Amino acid sequence: MKQLLVYTLVISSILSCSDNKENNKSDKILGSPKAIVSKEPNNVTTKGPLAYAPQVPKLIDSDTVEVKIDVSHKLFQVAKGISFTGWLFGDSLPGPVLRVRVGQTIKFSMTDRSLDTMQNMSMNMNMKPMPHSIDFHAAMVNPEDKYRTIFPGETINFTWTANYPGVFMYHCGTPMVLLHMISGMVGMVIVEPKEGFPGKVDREFAIVQNEYYLKNNGNYFVPDTSIAMRKQPTQVAFNGKVGQYVIHPIHVKAGERIRVYFMNVGPNNISSFHVIGTILDKVWQDGNPANQLVGMQAALVGPAQGAIMEFVLPEKGRYTFVDHSFANAEMGAAGAFVAE
Amino acid sequence: MKQLLVYTLVISSILSCSDNKENNKSDKILGSPKAIVSKEPNNVTTKGPLAYAPQVPKLIDSDTVEVKIDVSHKLFQVAKGISFTGWLFGDSLPGPVLRVRVGQTIKFSMTDRSLDTMQNMSMNMNMKPMPHSIDFHAAMVNPEDKYRTIFPGETINFTWTANYPGVFMYHCGTPMVLLHMISGMVGMVIVEPKEGFPGKVDREFAIVQNEYYLKNNGNYFVPDTSIAMRKQPTQVAFNGKVGQYVIHPIHVKAGERIRVYFMNVGPNNISSFHVIGTILDKVWQDGNPANQLVGMQAALVGPAQGAIMEFVLPEKGRYTFVDHSFANAEMGAAGAFVAE
Amino acid sequence: MKQLLVYTLVISSILSCSDNKENNKSDKILGSPKAIVSKEPNNVTTKGPLAYAPQVPKLIDSDTVEVKIDVSHKLFQVAKGISFTGWLFGDSLPGPVLRVRVGQTIKFSMTDRSLDTMQNMSMNMNMKPMPHSIDFHAAMVNPEDKYRTIFPGETINFTWTANYPGVFMYHCGTPMVLLHMISGMVGMVIVEPKEGFPGKVDREFAIVQNEYYLKNNGNYFVPDTSIAMRKQPTQVAFNGKVGQYVIHPIHVKAGERIRVYFMNVGPNNISSFHVIGTILDKVWQDGNPANQLVGMQAALVGPAQGAIMEFVLPEKGRYTFVDHSFANAEMGAAGAFVAE
Repeated sequence: MKQLLVYTLVISSILSCSDNKENNKSDKILGSPKAIVSKEPNNVTTKGPLAYAPQVPKLIDSDTVEVKIDVSHKLFQVAKGISFTGWLFGDSLPGPVLRVRVGQTIKFSMTDRSLDTMQNMSMNMNMKPMPHSIDFHAAMVNPEDKYRTIFPGETINFTWTANYPGVFMYHCGTPMVLLHMISGMVGMVIVEPKEGFPGKVDREFAIVQNEYYLKNNGNYFVPDTSIAMRKQPTQVAFNGKVGQYVIHPIHVKAGERIRVYFMNVGPNNISSFHVIGTILDKVWQDGNPANQLVGMQAALVGPAQGAIMEFVLPEKGRYTFVDHSFANAEMGAAGAFVAE
Repeated sequence: MKQLLVYTLVISSILSCSDNKENNKSDKILGSPKAIVSKEPNNVTTKGPLAYAPQVPKLIDSDTVEVKIDVSHKLFQVAKGISFTGWLFGDSLPGPVLRVRVGQTIKFSMTDRSLDTMQNMSMNMNMKPMPHSIDFHAAMVNPEDKYRTIFPGETINFTWTANYPGVFMYHCGTPMVLLHMISGMVGMVIVEPKEGFPGKVDREFAIVQNEYYLKNNGNYFVPDTSIAMRKQPTQVAFNGKVGQYVIHPIHVKAGERIRVYFMNVGPNNISSFHVIGTILDKVWQDGNPANQLVGMQAALVGPAQGAIMEFVLPEKGRYTFVDHSFANAEMGAAGAFVAE
Repeated sequence: MKQLLVYTLVISSILSCSDNKENNKSDKILGSPKAIVSKEPNNVTTKGPLAYAPQVPKLIDSDTVEVKIDVSHKLFQVAKGISFTGWLFGDSLPGPVLRVRVGQTIKFSMTDRSLDTMQNMSMNMNMKPMPHSIDFHAAMVNPEDKYRTIFPGETINFTWTANYPGVFMYHCGTPMVLLHMISGMVGMVIVEPKEGFPGKVDREFAIVQNEYYLKNNGNYFVPDTSIAMRKQPTQVAFNGKVGQYVIHPIHVKAGERIRVYFMNVGPNNISSFHVIGTILDKVWQDGNPANQLVGMQAALVGPAQGAIMEFVLPEKGRYTFVDHSFANAEMGAAGAFVAE
């Protein structure tokens, strides 16, 4: 009996050892019913397990989750003296963080509310109504159908099922895609494994890194694709605003285990995320626990890639975190934890 | 007996578990006889298990494989209205895909046929005969000898043995190497493990990503190393031609398991390869199954690195694939699968 | 008994299989006593298990290791005709390689000796005394305290304990950090696992890759942060000097197993390290044996990341090594091994 137990333990461990990075295709939900585009009025602008980074939303415990993230055009301040007309998911840049679980089906809805700000058109050409769309890297669906472009005032509804755990990007996929991304239409989805992420942590934060390519147009700035084509950003930010966590650091306790859900939405460059004064105990590439690196001084995260990082701040103090592709840090990709 | 079987299973699994990333040095073939350079006439220009990407060649089942890939100078069209004098392996850009197996010895031959296009010299200075060479990243040989530069009209013969599975680059290594690479002398070698790649797939494709650095010289374009030194390409392409699979998408079936052999020949920048509407079930870094990542939204592939990716297109539709370092997508690194 | 042995073997192997990437938090030493800054005279400028790359120092076998690395300002030649005032750790660029072991406590001391070169001020504004600091990526301590900026003539003393094996960066963290890094304040720490790195090698070398952003100011060059913000280096070097190992190659024997401790100190760009004529048998990302890739044609190393690579040169010959982000190779990131 004991022997059998050992065998079982051995066999299952071996299987999990050789197969832990395999995925059983049979439990994936591929595709979904056709998307529906309508002009039905809808007064809810955001709904679901959403939060604004660095906050991380809580999971909703059900097989189906209703999510709404609308698009609006709105003046957005990147840094003191630098504002531009953002095209925003959920009125924010990055858009709200969505958290779901493998196996959950997301009933998603998005209204293009860019008509609402039409009265401000005189101020800024970028305020004019504009077709938009949404592309979830976490979904497995026909993009021609679900990620289709809708017109101002329209609402799109479609469902998708989360198949893989990780940290995934969402963004507008309407051409010129590069323009829609540098105008702010970027966000993060966290997909938990069915059984939750392995290990226990004390604190969780979401950090989205994005590059700005802004040109001064007199009274305001405008995203400029010709600058973006050269891949040399004018600002780089964590959660949309240059150096915001330098001014208002994130407060934690020394010795706490911290998990950062990190998404490099680019659109162009790698990030080498580093926390000064500590070492990343674990890095899960694209946020999948099967893709584990340990003891990393920095996490190399490509554009449109995610990572989950766990670490401890060893003693009381202030711990600056940066993109150690250091020109990016100097351009704004810097923040700080204060450990008490 | 059953117990013994279990032990054996256990032990071998443990070995493969702890050692699956080890390489037994003793089974590697290091080096090879001296290369021979001659002026012997040779009318065969390509020979061996070769195919033009996105096609993937079939293995030849023998211990020794004869391969010939000649070099020629030829006008090459990158996009409508953009042509330049390519320095090409096997008359194509990228050069033909070569497929071999670990343990196979490649009897390789290359003739520099750049004399053949001499009559066109008046048209374009880049047509003039030029010394060339070939460097196989898949080989383990003395580069001073095997990768030596030959002169127009000469033929080099050398052998090498494939020791590691993966997707490897080949390119011209004649100085200025950067110029020879941006002029088109780049290609892919697929090396299968002895027992074949693990797992079964329905379809296989080869995709080589390359950057262009072209300057308009009046009637034609010319590769410009001063632009290449700034690492800001003028075009980026999959299999040499800007957006060719946007116009002529690759046809597959929904639900099929697709394997892409991917090579980022650079010469400079990373690629973040992404298929819109699905998730990469597996990514083998540099194409070696021991270097597995799972559930990736994108594969970060450095310049001069390869990857094998497996994925499923979940339902009927059109799935655009891009380098999600998105300026590159806008510059031409975009294509599409149509799933029927 | 034999059965028990098998079980034990099995269980421990399984544990090492499933847990080899885990880190037992309990054995880490977090933080250390307050740093002490003084003006006490100190005539020792470097001390401890240090060596100048490509040499690798020997470990000191004790629980506590005294290390001193002072800072000085000194004319540094990058290439023929290209010199600038380097801000240097241990009078060298990169600073000396430090080698310690997991669990060792480093009693570190650094004096800012930039006053000593004050008499040369007339020659070059960059010679003027300057506050500096040191940030060890290998340490887990409060950066506010230990990595604080000291003034010319001051000495800082603090201790830290090595918790994770790998290859880690050290650098000056005084604002503008980017300027201090491109002025030469960069180096490598090797941290061995308690039991040493797994496997036996014949030769060991240290290679630090760094980018220069130099502007010609008449008689001399000066590091220019506005160039560095564009991430387009003017030179790239292995161990500080453009192409030094092209002129003076590193001599080894064919068939020897070579281990390279590699650190990409950036400050900005990735490196795709490649040895022409061979394949990297093993690559340990950030130098941690738990993060193993095998059979790589190149190692993708982000800025502020390290790697350990092991390989064999297959036969007698000359093997050039490059950053295969090839513009970098053309800008100086090239060297050679000669295998005899």
